Amino acid sequence: MAPIILDHMGNDQNEYIKQHVQVKNPYLDTMEEDILYHFSLSTKTHNLPEMFGDIKFVCVGGSANRMKAFAQFIHQELELPGNPEEVRDICEGTDRYCMYKVGPVLSLSHGMGVPSISIMLHELIKLLHHAQCSDVVLIRLGTSGGVGLAPGTVVVTNKAVDYSFLPQFEQVVLGKVITRSTELDEGVANELLQCSAELQSFPTMIGNTMCTHDFYEGQGRLDGALCSFSHEEKLEYLRKAYEAGVRNIEMESTVFAAMCRVCGVKAAVVCVALLNRFDGDQITSPHDVLVEYQQRPQVLVSHFIKKRLGHIV
Amino acid sequence: MAPIILDHMGNDQNEYIKQHVQVKNPYLDTMEEDILYHFSLSTKTHNLPEMFGDIKFVCVGGSANRMKAFAQFIHQELELPGNPEEVRDICEGTDRYCMYKVGPVLSLSHGMGVPSISIMLHELIKLLHHAQCSDVVLIRLGTSGGVGLAPGTVVVTNKAVDYSFLPQFEQVVLGKVITRSTELDEGVANELLQCSAELQSFPTMIGNTMCTHDFYEGQGRLDGALCSFSHEEKLEYLRKAYEAGVRNIEMESTVFAAMCRVCGVKAAVVCVALLNRFDGDQITSPHDVLVEYQQRPQVLVSHFIKKRLGHIV
Repeated sequence: MAPIILDHMGNDQNEYIKQHVQVKNPYLDTMEEDILYHFSLSTKTHNLPEMFGDIKFVCVGGSANRMKAFAQFIHQELELPGNPEEVRDICEGTDRYCMYKVGPVLSLSHGMGVPSISIMLHELIKLLHHAQCSDVVLIRLGTSGGVGLAPGTVVVTNKAVDYSFLPQFEQVVLGKVITRSTELDEGVANELLQCSAELQSFPTMIGNTMCTHDFYEGQGRLDGALCSFSHEEKLEYLRKAYEAGVRNIEMESTVFAAMCRVCGVKAAVVCVALLNRFDGDQITSPHDVLVEYQQRPQVLVSHFIKKRLGHIV
Repeated sequence: MAPIILDHMGNDQNEYIKQHVQVKNPYLDTMEEDILYHFSLSTKTHNLPEMFGDIKFVCVGGSANRMKAFAQFIHQELELPGNPEEVRDICEGTDRYCMYKVGPVLSLSHGMGVPSISIMLHELIKLLHHAQCSDVVLIRLGTSGGVGLAPGTVVVTNKAVDYSFLPQFEQVVLGKVITRSTELDEGVANELLQCSAELQSFPTMIGNTMCTHDFYEGQGRLDGALCSFSHEEKLEYLRKAYEAGVRNIEMESTVFAAMCRVCGVKAAVVCVALLNRFDGDQITSPHDVLVEYQQRPQVLVSHFIKKRLGHIV
């Protein structure tokens, strides 16, 4: 095959250097119709390139209400025309996920846990592929338990790690377990940290994020319906996590990192810590304090988007 | 210890033979307050025995809209006073789950996947414990992919099995994997099958249910963003599942069965098959057909509840 000489590609050059979202499924382009069932969208009933082709930022989070609030917030921040209160749920045909589009930003919910976000990611990546999107950054904005951090601290994930503190995600494919890497984009993480330094509004750090498959026993909580370990054993596990660089615990980051990496999408995870797990298990902060904490990842990511779009120099 | 002679227990006899919901956590009763964070309820701010003490049936399902519809349906079926349209979401302080109480029936949503339902189950079992509920039956009403079944067939789960077709659930506790049994209550399953025979409205069978941690690669779908296997390899996996007694595939049954079993709650899983996975992967039935399919588990469980309450003899 002849070498590709960028200088000689004319109009095609821009196309070539664009980073398209890559599905890794040879069957997909042979399908007459692709129904994105959990979004209530389809390639036959919706013009996906027209609806989504200009998307550059996809922001996802567990709670539907929070992702609606983020869509309204980013609408104001980007000073777009129209009433932010009137953002419309594109997935209104289903209650599995909520999705809002605000200029080049897509804001959507993914529910709680790896399986729930995994369904969303499969259908999102297919959507971005069908819509021929390029140069997309995907950011998860979440809540988490802090490990040795003051409540309210924002953690930008370095590596998403499993319960053994390893940067890997185990995926079952036809009854066999395969392992995928969970490294995230270092450049985007550093840009987000720089944004926090510019904002000077709340503490932000880069650290490893542990992803578990439940909220109670897997995270060493003493307050679930089931608990078979002592307070001291819990603290020992958290201390080991801290020594392995873990600064917060949530429930979606490994599969998020793994799937984005396989599909060539630059991705970041930005979670606020609602409590310090060395001090307790229950989330006891007053409602208004928790609401303000949950806005911190939104403020940080909004700054990042505005910088990337040239609204802030 | 002297033997307990039931005949001589007087008023205590009823208490003794009642099957209370058992939390398995020695710390729980020493806590001054228990915040059920994902329900936005707490033992300090809510009188849980007064709110929930009379509950005998807890029905759970993935979709919030569907569980609201079930609450309204059961309200009509039990001919309770008041307007079924006005059922109130008890968890309105959060959008993680929805919860409705209709007479002795609690209807609540659990989202998609094992982690999401596991958070709900921890907090539900604690709620039933704090409310001093007894003789509770817990039923999951869901949708699933059928394995060798006509779409619309209802499957009452015999055993919930993992991706290796084994009746077990692997739970990580402080970084160590422990295995729990996933056998469900045989008596309740047979009662449900008998209800279906009485209704004569749709095909119902007892079979094993495979629980996976994603909807695409783990279930052998060829239409995800990622797919690394052939059509023939997919069919071979489904054939092996069928030979192991698997009749449908969903994403919550193993942890549901395991936690109910540990906590002494009689439990059943009733899922309708939306498609036959030997024939395809996409859910292509028209919307109204899917809506009718999704009502089938509701009709069956309503009949079961009415029989248990003596409304039908």
